[in-house]
Amino acid sequence: MNAEIIAVGSELLTIGRMDTNSLYLTGELNNIGVEVVAKSVVGDDRDRLAEAIRGALSRSQILILTGGLGPTEDDVTREATAQALDRKMVFHAEIAELLEQRFARMKRKMAEINKRQAFVIEGADVLPNDRGTAPGQWVEDSGAVAMLLPGPPHELKAMFERQCLPRLERIVPKLAIRTLFLRVTGMTESDLDQTISPVYRKYTNPATTILAANGDLQVHLRSRCATAEEADALLAEVGGPIEAVLGDRIYSRGGEPLESVVGGLLRAAHATVSVAESCTGGMLGERFTTVPGSSDYFVGGFITYTNEMKTELLGVDPQILGQFGAVSRETAEAMAAGARRRTNSTYSVAITGEAGPNASSAAAPVGLVFVAVADGEKISTVQRQFLGDRTRIRTFTTQMALDILRRRLLRAALPNAM
Amino acid sequence: MNAEIIAVGSELLTIGRMDTNSLYLTGELNNIGVEVVAKSVVGDDRDRLAEAIRGALSRSQILILTGGLGPTEDDVTREATAQALDRKMVFHAEIAELLEQRFARMKRKMAEINKRQAFVIEGADVLPNDRGTAPGQWVEDSGAVAMLLPGPPHELKAMFERQCLPRLERIVPKLAIRTLFLRVTGMTESDLDQTISPVYRKYTNPATTILAANGDLQVHLRSRCATAEEADALLAEVGGPIEAVLGDRIYSRGGEPLESVVGGLLRAAHATVSVAESCTGGMLGERFTTVPGSSDYFVGGFITYTNEMKTELLGVDPQILGQFGAVSRETAEAMAAGARRRTNSTYSVAITGEAGPNASSAAAPVGLVFVAVADGEKISTVQRQFLGDRTRIRTFTTQMALDILRRRLLRAALPNAM
Repeated sequence: MNAEIIAVGSELLTIGRMDTNSLYLTGELNNIGVEVVAKSVVGDDRDRLAEAIRGALSRSQILILTGGLGPTEDDVTREATAQALDRKMVFHAEIAELLEQRFARMKRKMAEINKRQAFVIEGADVLPNDRGTAPGQWVEDSGAVAMLLPGPPHELKAMFERQCLPRLERIVPKLAIRTLFLRVTGMTESDLDQTISPVYRKYTNPATTILAANGDLQVHLRSRCATAEEADALLAEVGGPIEAVLGDRIYSRGGEPLESVVGGLLRAAHATVSVAESCTGGMLGERFTTVPGSSDYFVGGFITYTNEMKTELLGVDPQILGQFGAVSRETAEAMAAGARRRTNSTYSVAITGEAGPNASSAAAPVGLVFVAVADGEKISTVQRQFLGDRTRIRTFTTQMALDILRRRLLRAALPNAM
Repeated sequence: MNAEIIAVGSELLTIGRMDTNSLYLTGELNNIGVEVVAKSVVGDDRDRLAEAIRGALSRSQILILTGGLGPTEDDVTREATAQALDRKMVFHAEIAELLEQRFARMKRKMAEINKRQAFVIEGADVLPNDRGTAPGQWVEDSGAVAMLLPGPPHELKAMFERQCLPRLERIVPKLAIRTLFLRVTGMTESDLDQTISPVYRKYTNPATTILAANGDLQVHLRSRCATAEEADALLAEVGGPIEAVLGDRIYSRGGEPLESVVGGLLRAAHATVSVAESCTGGMLGERFTTVPGSSDYFVGGFITYTNEMKTELLGVDPQILGQFGAVSRETAEAMAAGARRRTNSTYSVAITGEAGPNASSAAAPVGLVFVAVADGEKISTVQRQFLGDRTRIRTFTTQMALDILRRRLLRAALPNAM
């Protein structure tokens, strides 16, 4: 079975924006054995969109439309789909009521224009949206299905996962599909590919994909066979050697993010952590607390952006700052020790570095960072030189900091550690 | 004049890859007054691609195809275009010879298969490629033009700039283009639209686009006229009333992000700021320090994720926490006051809230947040109830916190403030 994806919105045709929902949807569709054969972006033009919808439904059995479900006149996906299918639009009073209740919960009066979101294509199923105002729609027509999903990724993902996937699984022919999803850090994309391509290169099934973003790497393997046994066997044949060669550079199997893996290790060790951040300005704390329930192990910390704050809040000796500079091993270690002392956490992670774009002193080039991890017994520090812009340097630094703590926790958990 | 872009290649339909050439091409086309009205990605399937080409040329005067010009059987752009235009392919011996010379310069023998790249659509102009083996093609047909360009960005850019732009400028009517770009916060997308649509609705020129992401709103206006004077006048006619009605909800003209605007106001006021973050875990500090040079005004702060840390690091009275709870106006105010006292910054911004997914106490529902801003004289606190998931609640909260500080700084800068 084939699918097409149409992202709707004139803003997605400007230089500043891209449709990225289609990447998520492609992954989910591939997982149930559906191939994406075309995708497109169409502006807020009803006739043009209707034509694109007609074309897609004449070629493919599954069409996903994203965006254009808002309340404004620019939002034409509902009307364009009705036009393409030659169906009427029906007002659903119960949707209008839910919308009004949602606004009431926010203590606001619903604008009249929001009622446009209560119109449903004749014969379509309504897909409730618990994360936003735009309900989705599921319309079947002549053996094909069109799904109308909201554009904001967090709304789209929840709706697709909870409401579209179960419906799709009923109509998509069963193929046994097995996936292996490894998350890897601490190496570059080309190192990763060079390390594992001798293993996967000979196979088209399973299909192997490598993704890289912000120092985080993903390896996806997908085998598709007539039987589960065959799919399992093929996946093991390729995935086993890949896992062996990567070792502990694999930090999760199944998609758990690094923050969450580290949190799990802290929780298992009954340990707590605090942070002391200079150039990352709070990004490491932000990442720790992305995880629900992180208050079990994350206590808090310090953002010490200036030298004065490093001294005042963390007790870093001004002599250390004067002699070695703010971006130095000595300062990182003093920051980690200070944060641990003042929060009484089991571990403390300190970051200091030069995120750019301009170096503030000749001693610390842009991209030079130090990450120190302290516990009650010792402080270990890693120095790295990153390349790229401010965002890249800060993101790679927090990634490295989380990975250093992960390895430290893994070693501490070994029976013969120390 | 309208354009469409088709990126060709099955690899662009996987989860790991995106077509980014279209962003470059969109910028270049907009610069000469051409709108991109649709873009799509089609896999290596000749019939499907031919159909997409026919469709695009029936709607738009300009079609740019990128990729699929290589020597292998997967490379179907040439054949698909010929099929769509119902034209023959012609072998150009002089192209084959250039290809052979190119291989000879690399001291390699050309594979027979590379001769496929010497086939040209009947009546097309050949666009030489000095950065790769795939020549491009320029085909005019029934008042429309199709350009076949190579996929690698550095080859595509050179070919488009040197060979397509001069040709396009001969056929595209000269237009003067003027743009207005407003960034707005503190209202919802539908409120924004309701507020300004009475102004812009009557006009298709300038074109008005509203974008919304994470509580941040953008309004883009673009006028296109025969003369610069007319384009300026039209833009003022629509943009002026929009600016007037939005007032200080506009935080920047020209794209400067909120963090940077707030930073500019702090710098102008010779003021400093610190943060005290609970549920946002460092995200506010992270946003302040996204801006290069933010150490001029951002000193640092505290991440106090637990009650103990609020007391230890910020001096929040345990009685306040006990009586009102961590998520309360009283706690927010005590956090702001404590952070200001301990950092000696001009302003301190404190955030406490329940980011979910589960409420830790009945008193604070998920999404309830308090933001307090303290200076030496007073503390003002705003309470809000956000909806959505953890990421949305945290992002909207930091957006609101930055906006509260922005408004406070604007008021303080007025001559008769206080």
